[in-house]
Amino acid sequence: MRLTAHQARELFGMARVATLATVSAAGQPHVVPVTFATDGDFVYTAVDAKPKSTRDLARLRNLRANTRVAVLADHYDDDWSALWWARADGEASIVEDLATVTGPVRLLAGRYRQYQDSPPEGPLVIVRVLRWTGWSAS
Amino acid sequence: MRLTAHQARELFGMARVATLATVSAAGQPHVVPVTFATDGDFVYTAVDAKPKSTRDLARLRNLRANTRVAVLADHYDDDWSALWWARADGEASIVEDLATVTGPVRLLAGRYRQYQDSPPEGPLVIVRVLRWTGWSAS
Repeated sequence: MRLTAHQARELFGMARVATLATVSAAGQPHVVPVTFATDGDFVYTAVDAKPKSTRDLARLRNLRANTRVAVLADHYDDDWSALWWARADGEASIVEDLATVTGPVRLLAGRYRQYQDSPPEGPLVIVRVLRWTGWSAS
Repeated sequence: MRLTAHQARELFGMARVATLATVSAAGQPHVVPVTFATDGDFVYTAVDAKPKSTRDLARLRNLRANTRVAVLADHYDDDWSALWWARADGEASIVEDLATVTGPVRLLAGRYRQYQDSPPEGPLVIVRVLRWTGWSAS
């Protein structure tokens, strides 16, 4: 049921979307769905052209106050024997200038065709994963 | 694109799964997928019989230290014009004895047939939602 770190990383890496959780300076959690790419023990997610309600993004404001993040990929099915989740806990850093991180941007474009036409403008969030955990019903 | 609180609550309420984010006493975010039911500005989720890696659940330990939560429901599609998410930010309380909260348990059983055969043992987490937000691509 419990996944090994290796299994969790594998499953996580294949997911199309994940949930990024950050914490404000006041201790309020924030969650947002993100597209992402992984490379070993790193998770990359970029602020992209998908319309945002504000440019002063809570996730970035939070990361400037507290670098700790959790990122969750999961699968739901009404047949609960098909459920699984995989989580990456780690420390995030923000890269403002995407020209300095062409590798991660290429990985993102490799996973999402939308990024080939319209590359993310950034910033890029780099999560150094300190712990992979996961669970699968079967 | 940005949803009204009413729209976000509606969309959230129809989702089959959500992500519950809590924060540890040390400021580490934690995320886990949860089944849930809503009733107006309340979200209910119960610890159930789905196997857990430990009974000392991080979500409960965190809520005892910090009652603030964020709960996210979202929809991913490779066609990004179909994306949406809805988020409930609020304060959570823990009810240990499910016999005292038959209404929420009935709502959960109404949404998930598994709970009709095997009611959640609890505890129940009650989120009083202070803010509904959301976003839809179309």
